[in-house]
Order: sequence, then structure tokens, then C-alpha cells
Amino acid sequence: MGYGRMTDREWESIRKIVGSERVSMGESILDLHSKDESFHQRRRPDVVVWPIRTEEISEILKMANEKRIPVTPWGAGTSLEGNPIPVEGGIVLDLQQMNHIHEIRKEDLQVRVEPGVIYKELNKTLSRYGLFFPPDPGASATIGGMIGNNASGIRTIKYGSTKDFVLGMVVVLPSGEVIRVGTNAVKTSSGYDLCRLFVGSEGTLGVVTEVNLRLTGLPAEFMAAVAQFHSIREATDTVFQIMCSGLSPAALEFLDAPTVQVVNQFKKLSLGEKPTLFIEFHGASATGLKEELEMIKEICQENQSFQFDSGIGREERNRLWEARYGVRESIKVNNPGFTPLVIDTAVPISKYSEMVEWGQKVVKKKGLKGYAFGHAGSGNLHMEILGIPEEKAQWQRVREAEEEIVHFALECGGTATGEHGVGIGKKKFMKKEHGKSLALMKQIKKLLDPNGIMNPGKIFD
Amino acid sequence: MGYGRMTDREWESIRKIVGSERVSMGESILDLHSKDESFHQRRRPDVVVWPIRTEEISEILKMANEKRIPVTPWGAGTSLEGNPIPVEGGIVLDLQQMNHIHEIRKEDLQVRVEPGVIYKELNKTLSRYGLFFPPDPGASATIGGMIGNNASGIRTIKYGSTKDFVLGMVVVLPSGEVIRVGTNAVKTSSGYDLCRLFVGSEGTLGVVTEVNLRLTGLPAEFMAAVAQFHSIREATDTVFQIMCSGLSPAALEFLDAPTVQVVNQFKKLSLGEKPTLFIEFHGASATGLKEELEMIKEICQENQSFQFDSGIGREERNRLWEARYGVRESIKVNNPGFTPLVIDTAVPISKYSEMVEWGQKVVKKKGLKGYAFGHAGSGNLHMEILGIPEEKAQWQRVREAEEEIVHFALECGGTATGEHGVGIGKKKFMKKEHGKSLALMKQIKKLLDPNGIMNPGKIFD
Repeated sequence: MGYGRMTDREWESIRKIVGSERVSMGESILDLHSKDESFHQRRRPDVVVWPIRTEEISEILKMANEKRIPVTPWGAGTSLEGNPIPVEGGIVLDLQQMNHIHEIRKEDLQVRVEPGVIYKELNKTLSRYGLFFPPDPGASATIGGMIGNNASGIRTIKYGSTKDFVLGMVVVLPSGEVIRVGTNAVKTSSGYDLCRLFVGSEGTLGVVTEVNLRLTGLPAEFMAAVAQFHSIREATDTVFQIMCSGLSPAALEFLDAPTVQVVNQFKKLSLGEKPTLFIEFHGASATGLKEELEMIKEICQENQSFQFDSGIGREERNRLWEARYGVRESIKVNNPGFTPLVIDTAVPISKYSEMVEWGQKVVKKKGLKGYAFGHAGSGNLHMEILGIPEEKAQWQRVREAEEEIVHFALECGGTATGEHGVGIGKKKFMKKEHGKSLALMKQIKKLLDPNGIMNPGKIFD
Repeated sequence: MGYGRMTDREWESIRKIVGSERVSMGESILDLHSKDESFHQRRRPDVVVWPIRTEEISEILKMANEKRIPVTPWGAGTSLEGNPIPVEGGIVLDLQQMNHIHEIRKEDLQVRVEPGVIYKELNKTLSRYGLFFPPDPGASATIGGMIGNNASGIRTIKYGSTKDFVLGMVVVLPSGEVIRVGTNAVKTSSGYDLCRLFVGSEGTLGVVTEVNLRLTGLPAEFMAAVAQFHSIREATDTVFQIMCSGLSPAALEFLDAPTVQVVNQFKKLSLGEKPTLFIEFHGASATGLKEELEMIKEICQENQSFQFDSGIGREERNRLWEARYGVRESIKVNNPGFTPLVIDTAVPISKYSEMVEWGQKVVKKKGLKGYAFGHAGSGNLHMEILGIPEEKAQWQRVREAEEEIVHFALECGGTATGEHGVGIGKKKFMKKEHGKSLALMKQIKKLLDPNGIMNPGKIFD
């Protein structure tokens, strides 16, 4: 489909809508909006706009839709699959100035925010009310970006992913029409679930300009443990047994030996360089958690854990989890000059051992270096496979490794992306993952965005 | 839209597809499929078919789509809003013979089932594996029916509603095309969430013929309490404080005084006839639960609870909860000759007191009899307002009371239906609840079902 190009006329229209202060064609600005944290190729937009009101976005979309100019919403640029790279140029809507917390309704355990709010900032504010928004992708993502990718993370195993917390939204459709979807009630069976259609649609169906989020009370008490094993199988069997035990971990993370090694180096720690689990429980009281800790310890011991360190309370939790944070940075710092290709498969829990082992085997076979870690309790595996994109032959092997690993996940009944979204990088797996239902997704895209202006080139072509 | 009528030719086609044993036009059979458990007007279908294979449904839909014959899927007929009444006649697909549990994957905490499986039967089978499927609408609903209405119930407050447990499905589209949606992984960010588009669509977008459900480990230990209060406000304030406390109740139910009274009469119990909360906690151990019980007790006392009974263990739980079960039957038996109109609003938790009080006030103002109870922790209120549909003037007042109550819920930012679905009964509130996004729902309906054959006359016209 041929897109329209920005001319002086469109530039003038945008300036009329937002004023001249909140629009830029400056080179450095365009550069900053040409790339997320992935390896995917840069592409500059023609113009960056910082809207602050729903009405502005509505007017911009109306104009863009008439002229068939691509529009790509932008959060913090921390995504990992090229999700907000404006591959067809056009307009980038940088939503970072829409960063107001409209209303904290403590009495409803809900908050109404703009999409540019950083979730870490939101949680800092909410903590004063004894509340939190649990999905935690790790990076300094915005709420809008998290909605785009249906982000999740370490605590999803207990609390759910972004879509489980979005109750209602204001969405500007590609035509410029503004609709409200969802409700402020925490449950509903009223009509089609449009809310969950927009969450995870990566900005391809419209622009979210306001969100009503469900929250959770901050846990009163924390328990944490780090358990180390001689083999991946022992570690992942432990994960499986914990999940079947009726216990409800707040986090259950896996790091393979090479990952522990780089974290040790980077953070000057001295963990055994073996497959490791990081475990966290939330509870109302220390007494209850102590008993759960005993059960966890027993399961770890049954699986030949050779090292088990644990503690109760927030400080102990932070001490024990130190090594889990900064994994990506540790890999980066220890491998200067290399670029990671990030795997984000999720598989049924019984396949997690095989998934990790397969990943390591493929990487080894291709003569590459890789690190495996992830949200084991949810079956979500991240692998960072290292290469240098400019060294074509080697990068080709990195891509081949990705293909083999993702195909294995799909053959296990899993998904190409557990939490990063499809973006550019995982498009090629969509046919295999979704089969005939991919056509229905495309029809829905066509229904909402007949001119294909919203974030083109993502999810599918 | 004019529908095609069943003639001998269509009857013959169906007989060719499923054989002559699994199709009927017998009067008593048609009658059995003319009405659910609601007050809505009976309407017989022209024919009832009991398919047992996805392919049969695909062929029937293909034929029906060509001839524009309405098709309405049928579960157990236990719904409360006329959801499966074939208001335009045509074909009823009774899915009760598709009742196989294909595969229990204990190691994945998942099960693959056909839509005709009764959830209570499923849970009986799963209990042998230490697993359960938490959403519990109460009635003997089928999994397919629960998916249609996104059913939930007493334990939704902790575990979620049906949509939170459906990972993947096989769906026959109105054209007869068969697609798979979703994944076997417990999390995914891969494309549009078609799974959650179909769940709750009340059979208006296609027929679900296979479902992959996520499960949860059976709780090891139970704690229960019954707390009684002098006023509704004290009871609902307690609910709010429990929800904000960081505690995670497995159930938190409210019964108003008239409801306690009929349950006492019907079940020969002797509860104080005052606003009452039924509380349940699940945990890994009795020790942890005892501590939570102390916290609950303290909150109840702070709110002037005059009666607090509690216990640990499954038997104690069953003893204490006896009065919560059979509420609907108690109302029915105590009010022979009356028909209930069922309210199913859900509101933000801070509005729950006002919601209950408003409901009681409206019923009183209209000179009617009503019972209020519900899933208070989720803000979900059921009211049964009694009347005799044949007494036009009185039934008119029942309908007016419904209008006033639902409109109040919508003004509180809530929903017309928390778990029963829209069906016929709540259609009239859709415009007010969804505003412009109702048009988008209709467009999606039109996209998937251009001839409007799937369960016509439900959700919207």
C-alpha cells in the first residue's frame, strides 16, 4: 500500500493542532525516535509530535488517515522487537508528555493515568497509598508501551500480565474517532471485550490516551530464596513441583550457569556458577511465609539443590535478589561489541527443561554464545544470543538459531513471544503460530484501520 | 434482516451430516430448548441437533450461512438472561454430547475439553490430580456456556473469571471455517487476543468446539468465617477494608437480611437475620490461615460485627458456608408463584454500599419484594426482584426497578452485567454502557458473521 508523504501542508496542519513547541523535525530528535532497544534497523520518522490531549491525537489521526500518512505511537523506546520503529516514516506520536496520574481511587484500588506515565514512577506514587500495579517489565517502560505489548515480567506468575489490570481505556481510532472501552468494575460480561483486543495490539489499531488500571494492595511481608542446582533439569523440575504444590509464588526465575557467571563478574558477587532459581513469596505475615519457606526448601532438597539461601522481610529479599537484576546489563558489559538477539518464547511448564536445553544446544551447534534466563514459573524463556550484525555470516547463524529455538517452542504448543510483542522481529513466526486465525487478525486490522496508517509493518505485513 | 426457513431440504442436509439419531423436531425436545432459567419469553427452535464433531458443526454452519438460517449454541440452559433462547427459531446446536475430557496435562496444569463438559464434573475428575478449574457460576453449567457468558462466581475475587483460564480454543466461524486461537503457554503477547474476543461473545461470533484451560492446584487448607452486622454499611465497609489489607480472600460474599431470612427458613438454619458476610481463604497451611483469620476478625470487630463464627479446614468451611448455597432455591421455595428478575450489576468496590442501598430503596419504592446478595469482593450485586409476568402492571414495576438499578450502576462507572452476560435482558443498557464502542462491537459482529446467523437477537439487535 502506498503511503502519503509529509509535505509543508501536513506539517502546517500539525503545527496548527499542537502549536509549534510540541513538534519537531530536528535530526537528533528524529534519530532518538528511529530505534528501540532491539537490533532492528533504524528508521527515522518524518516528524515527531508530543501531544498532550486526546483531542490533538484525534485531529492528527483524522488528518493522517485522509492523507494515508503512517502514525506510530511512542512510549519510552525500551521495547525489544522493534515495536515502535517507524519503518514507513511518517509521524511519531511521542506520548511522554501525557504523563499525568489523573486520579488515584484508593477506595476502589484503581488508578486513572495517561499513557506516558512510567510504571516505576507510578508504583513509587502508589506505594504511599499501600497499593501497586504489579506487572513489571523491568525497563523504564511507560504504561502505554506496556499496554501496547501486553507487557509482563517477574511477578506475572502470581498477579498476571498488563491485560489483567486494564479495566478501561480511552482509545483514538485511526479515523480520529474517540471511544471508551471497558468499565470501572473489576468484572464484566457486557459485550465483546474490546479492552483486551486493544491491549497487546502494539499500536496497530489506535492510540490509547487514558487508562483505568486495577491495582493490588502492597504485600505486607516478603520471603525470598535462592536455590542452586547441578543441572538445568533439577532446577526446572523444582519449578514444576512448586507450581503444582498449591503454593503461590510471587516470582520464580531461572538463570543458567553462563548468566550467573556474567552477573557475578559485573556485580562482584560470588554465587555458584550453576543453574539457579530465584524465588519470592508475598504474604500477610511472616509466620505463614516461614511455613511456605519450609515447603520450598523441601522441594529444592528433593531435587538435589546444593545451595539454598533464604530470608524473610524486604531487606533480605533485596539482598537475595541482587543477582537477578541487571542481567541484560551484565551480559552487555561483559561482551563489548556484541549485539544480543533476544528470544522470548513461552511454553507449557512441562516443556521448560527441554526448551532451555534445546536453546543451549542450538546456540552451541551454531558456534555462538548465548545466555538463558527467564520467568520459569510462567514457562517464559529469554535467551540472549550474541553476534555482530555487520558480520553477515555470523549474524545469519544468530538468526538461524532464533528460528530453530522459536520453532521448537511452537512445536511444544508455545508462543513466539511471551511478553515482548511481535514487533518486527517475530512477524515471521506468526503464520506458524496462528495458522488460519492470522487471517482473522488481519481482517480486524483492516476493519479498524482500512488505510493501514497505524504502526505499519508490525505484527504482520 | 430476513432469515431463511428450514424446509425439508435443510432437514435432509442436517440428517446427512449427523445421521438421523442426533437430530430432532419432536415437540418436547423443541420445548426443552426454548427457554433458559430466565423469565424471558419462550421461543422454540425449528430443529435441535446434537453434534459430536467439529466437522459436523462446520458443515451445519456452512449450510446455515448459505441459507441464512439462525444457529444458536446450547450448553446446559442454566443461563439467566435468555442467552441461548433461539428468538429467531432455526437450528439449536445442543453441545451436551461433546462432553469429553480429551486430555488432562497434569504436568502443565492444563486440561483440554469439549464444550459440553459440566464444570462440576470436570472439577470432580480434576480433584484426583490435585487440580481445579476455579470459576464457579454455581449452576450445573457447561464449559461452553461458561465461555459464552464469561461466567464467574464466588471464587473469582481470588482466581479470576472464565476468560482468565481459557488459553486456547477451536472455533467454528459462521462461514464454517475452523480456526484455532490462543496457545498452550500461560502467557503470550503474540498478536491480537482472539481468545478473549470469543470468550464472552455469547455464541454470536462462532461455535467453540474445543478448549484448552489453565488450572490451579487445589488449595491445601481452608479457612472460613461468617460475620454479621447491624447495617449494610458496616458489612460493605468490612469488605472494602479486607480488599485493601493486602489479604487475598478466596471468596467474600454478601447476603442482605431478607436473603438470610429465606435461607434460614428453607434450610432450617438460625443465623441472625441481619446483613451477613461469608468469607473464605485458601492457603498452604493452617498456621498461615490462623493468622489471616485473626486479621479478618479484627477488621470485622472494628466494623461492629455482632456475631463472628469461624473455622479452619474443609469441614468447617462447608458448615459455615451452608447458608450461602441454595440462595436462589430458598427465594423460589419461599415465594411460590413469583418469578424473579435477576440483577447482575458490578460496580467499583467503593460504591458497593450505595449500590445495595439503592437497590433496596428502589424495590421498596416500587412496592416490590427483593433480595440482595452477591460477590461483594468483586463489587458484583445480584438482586432478585419478584413479580408475576402475567400481571402486566406489576411486572412493569419490576422492569422499571431493574432500569433504575442498572442505570445507577452505570452512573457509578459499573457494568450492567458482571457475569450473566447480556443475552436478551440487558441489551437495552448497552448503548448507555458502551456509548460509541457499541458500534465497534457491531462492526466486529458484522465482520465475523455478515449474515447474522449466530445467536441472533442477543447482546445487540
